[in-house]
Amino acid sequence: MKKKQRKKINLYSRDFLYTQDFSKTEIKAIVDLTFLLKKMHLSGKSARFFDSGLAISIFRDFSTRTRFSFASAVSFTGLTLSELNEEQTQISHGETVRETANMISFLTEVIGIRDDLYIGEGHKYMKEIADAVREGYENGVLARKPTIINLQSDIDHPTQTFSDLAHLVNFFGSWKKLRGKRIAMSWAYSPSYGKPLSVPQGIITLFTRFGMNVILAHPEGYGLMPEIIETAKANSKKSGGSFEITNDMDKAFKNADIVYPKSWAPFTIMKKRTELLRAGRRDGLRQLEKKCLDMNSRNKKWECTKEKINLTKGQNALYMHCLPADISGVNCIRGEVSKDVFEKYRIQTYKEAGYKPFVIASVILLTRFKRITSILKKLKI
Amino acid sequence: MKKKQRKKINLYSRDFLYTQDFSKTEIKAIVDLTFLLKKMHLSGKSARFFDSGLAISIFRDFSTRTRFSFASAVSFTGLTLSELNEEQTQISHGETVRETANMISFLTEVIGIRDDLYIGEGHKYMKEIADAVREGYENGVLARKPTIINLQSDIDHPTQTFSDLAHLVNFFGSWKKLRGKRIAMSWAYSPSYGKPLSVPQGIITLFTRFGMNVILAHPEGYGLMPEIIETAKANSKKSGGSFEITNDMDKAFKNADIVYPKSWAPFTIMKKRTELLRAGRRDGLRQLEKKCLDMNSRNKKWECTKEKINLTKGQNALYMHCLPADISGVNCIRGEVSKDVFEKYRIQTYKEAGYKPFVIASVILLTRFKRITSILKKLKI
Amino acid sequence: MKKKQRKKINLYSRDFLYTQDFSKTEIKAIVDLTFLLKKMHLSGKSARFFDSGLAISIFRDFSTRTRFSFASAVSFTGLTLSELNEEQTQISHGETVRETANMISFLTEVIGIRDDLYIGEGHKYMKEIADAVREGYENGVLARKPTIINLQSDIDHPTQTFSDLAHLVNFFGSWKKLRGKRIAMSWAYSPSYGKPLSVPQGIITLFTRFGMNVILAHPEGYGLMPEIIETAKANSKKSGGSFEITNDMDKAFKNADIVYPKSWAPFTIMKKRTELLRAGRRDGLRQLEKKCLDMNSRNKKWECTKEKINLTKGQNALYMHCLPADISGVNCIRGEVSKDVFEKYRIQTYKEAGYKPFVIASVILLTRFKRITSILKKLKI
Repeated sequence: MKKKQRKKINLYSRDFLYTQDFSKTEIKAIVDLTFLLKKMHLSGKSARFFDSGLAISIFRDFSTRTRFSFASAVSFTGLTLSELNEEQTQISHGETVRETANMISFLTEVIGIRDDLYIGEGHKYMKEIADAVREGYENGVLARKPTIINLQSDIDHPTQTFSDLAHLVNFFGSWKKLRGKRIAMSWAYSPSYGKPLSVPQGIITLFTRFGMNVILAHPEGYGLMPEIIETAKANSKKSGGSFEITNDMDKAFKNADIVYPKSWAPFTIMKKRTELLRAGRRDGLRQLEKKCLDMNSRNKKWECTKEKINLTKGQNALYMHCLPADISGVNCIRGEVSKDVFEKYRIQTYKEAGYKPFVIASVILLTRFKRITSILKKLKI
Repeated sequence: MKKKQRKKINLYSRDFLYTQDFSKTEIKAIVDLTFLLKKMHLSGKSARFFDSGLAISIFRDFSTRTRFSFASAVSFTGLTLSELNEEQTQISHGETVRETANMISFLTEVIGIRDDLYIGEGHKYMKEIADAVREGYENGVLARKPTIINLQSDIDHPTQTFSDLAHLVNFFGSWKKLRGKRIAMSWAYSPSYGKPLSVPQGIITLFTRFGMNVILAHPEGYGLMPEIIETAKANSKKSGGSFEITNDMDKAFKNADIVYPKSWAPFTIMKKRTELLRAGRRDGLRQLEKKCLDMNSRNKKWECTKEKINLTKGQNALYMHCLPADISGVNCIRGEVSKDVFEKYRIQTYKEAGYKPFVIASVILLTRFKRITSILKKLKI
Repeated sequence: MKKKQRKKINLYSRDFLYTQDFSKTEIKAIVDLTFLLKKMHLSGKSARFFDSGLAISIFRDFSTRTRFSFASAVSFTGLTLSELNEEQTQISHGETVRETANMISFLTEVIGIRDDLYIGEGHKYMKEIADAVREGYENGVLARKPTIINLQSDIDHPTQTFSDLAHLVNFFGSWKKLRGKRIAMSWAYSPSYGKPLSVPQGIITLFTRFGMNVILAHPEGYGLMPEIIETAKANSKKSGGSFEITNDMDKAFKNADIVYPKSWAPFTIMKKRTELLRAGRRDGLRQLEKKCLDMNSRNKKWECTKEKINLTKGQNALYMHCLPADISGVNCIRGEVSKDVFEKYRIQTYKEAGYKPFVIASVILLTRFKRITSILKKLKI
């Protein structure tokens, strides 16, 4: 990276909540450092930039990949992981979020949060924590303001989509080669209910930044958040790519270089769900779940089969998934992807996932160390 | 600190269970190192005195502040935290405390314990663990005898009260300025039941060591453990301060430099509770809880309001709390402190809490490293 | 160790699942490094060979000793512990073992697993994880293939039996002195049900490698896995010791140098249990438990009392146990060992357990560092 570009990067002390908050140069810096850290790990080199200090994780939903990616990044950079288990703490005793955020942060460098279950909640909660620790720092309570890292919110899943981006840059060989590539971010059938919108939303907002032709495909009624759609449109206009929406999976797959078939719950239903949860209406929730599963079951054809892959460029598009996938005949009767297609790309999806620890480590280092230009220079990025 | 004083300090390998076990010189050494470690953290200096080794925590009650303070101190000094979750272990299979204590301690430097729920239990349990690892060490089972750190017992809460002490020394500017300061350790109303006696007991025994005028205030029937009261009296006589007890909150607040309004359960009720628990008498426990909450509700006027603060010196006493506080209109309808008073002092209470990680780190370093005088000298204390 | 011998050692990147997989030279190397690491700890020397990296533990059964031994070894060598809690992960969402194994291993050096509850399951599960990470490594998903360490399977418990072995070498003074020693691995009465076979199986297969006279004693119907018995026979033939089975505890104890009285569930019952569990037959399981406890209760005389110890060589055999023991009058009315016998040997059993952290550290270092001969040379083994 040239000196001029490095000067444009200002990541120190910033939070990592939403990709749209970052410039293209900053995104590239994060991904380039990701590659370098991965190489360092391969050759057994140390990335222990910290001598001590806590990294806290708050998981309000299940996690395997992200949990261990965070733990790995934390160990790799020299921090100590401490999980905030909300049941073991006094939070249940009526402590405010603002207070807890400060109480856990006296020696904390990073707070990673997964809060993806309710529309309108996760991102808000992360902002609340971020504001609280900023106030603490500004009032001399905290020596440093910890970085908040979004480990999946109701809106975005940036550590995942940055891993996806790194995977594509590596797969196609360069940043430049992303330009003009056609990617189908498609809904796919799942027998389960309530999967977050964060991945498809993250994908269409991030990949439209790089001149790609992004097609969002889903059955009618499975729309994403309207403001996210607007952002994707604006991004593609600016970057010189394209963005379109279709209700036809085949159309989306046709001639695609990359396909990302994945289930999610419709935005309208997720919104309704949050309202019912807030009102404590269990009956309504049961009915909503039934309604959503019924909707899903009318769309069982939205499965990524060999026939679908045969529609893609050279019958050989790159299949992507954030994992775990619902694989027909493996962990469900019928799901997002057929067994043969998944098996063909399985190792690729593992490699895709393998960038995540290094994305997180990259974000940690770039947001915690002030003299980033000198670090990048030293690391020859 | 002068050479003579340093010679009087003998903290190596000792447990940190009860402040009364330590000389004033030792207490000052712990707090002075606390200040230094806090400064080191602020300026990004390493306190990684350990290369490896375990610090074990055993939490038999909820905790946020102390849990993360312990985790922070452990990371800061270079140890590795391992929580003993009694449900995951063979302890439930009838293993004795004596055996468990040794089995977890082969590479353990520190064991932090919170056991504050039952009068007559917590301190006893900590002593039992301490005795067991001493026996193990003396018989060649353990390479070193781990330090036991009280993270709140039924009797005392020294990591909290040392933080409070550090906060006061910092707030008033020097150790000398504590002398003659009037502090009201007052009961306050709470809608909840069974809060430990450890904080008020710790405060009146520790602060009477430093020539302060300590007033303990509580409604009739909310007395502390009689032997603790005797200790506070003896301390104040020796240090040249004063100690009095009143049943009048206003009287206690009048002209106070510092107020510490906090709820607790009466000693007599806590004792009764332990007996009923031991006998497995659920009915009795329910009746006792009701009785205690009824008692509390007759004392709703024991709230730290603006009017109460206006009674204090210059209408401006320092408000203290170990957190989380029951704040009227925030996390309860009516509680220990009014919203406006708490908000005025909120940042101060966060700073008060902020000493705890460094108090714990200080205790760890002073009890684990033999050549303490040379370390203090090196650190210029 | 001589250069020739060191050349025979090839532990790099291998899994530690079953002692029979290792040559005698390799076993000796592991135990000799165990002794050295223990000495290093005693004298406060660092064994921090890693700069960062994860060690993952998966506990599918209770554990105290092994859990903390693993945590200790991990801290001692410089790794970071991360426990895989299967309930917090997406494993419950239908993720395959193969996938999970890779997803948690991007920066992982070691995976320790306890899975001892069902005959035919634990060892198989460990192999499945081992195969999955090998595939991941071979396909470029993982930078390194993590070492799988058996922390107790349905078949073997090598970190325990290696600790036992180290204890014996230390107790008798040298490897050579093991030759000809008579050890009674005896069943003992317990009021509980379903204890694994792994310890007695591990003992009879490991100790027959060193020219010892191994006697396996148990009531009729309490047999171990037939292939394990065959292995013990073959081992003793090769090593020049002896191996016999008896249904008479007194006979086994007679003239013994070492006694290891410990309860286990009969192989045939454990096999039946696994079948019933797989079929989800709760009634059958209850009946089986009752049957097994009835069987046990007919064998209450299989208790290690003073009278039994008086049968041993010089009335003074070394008593061993993997802990926790069922001690008559301490943690049960009647159990494996009388109170006086256990108390006499209690400190010895603690020392026996005390080797485990160093056994695990030794296995970690020998399987993770390639240039083992140079390391051993440097460490003067």
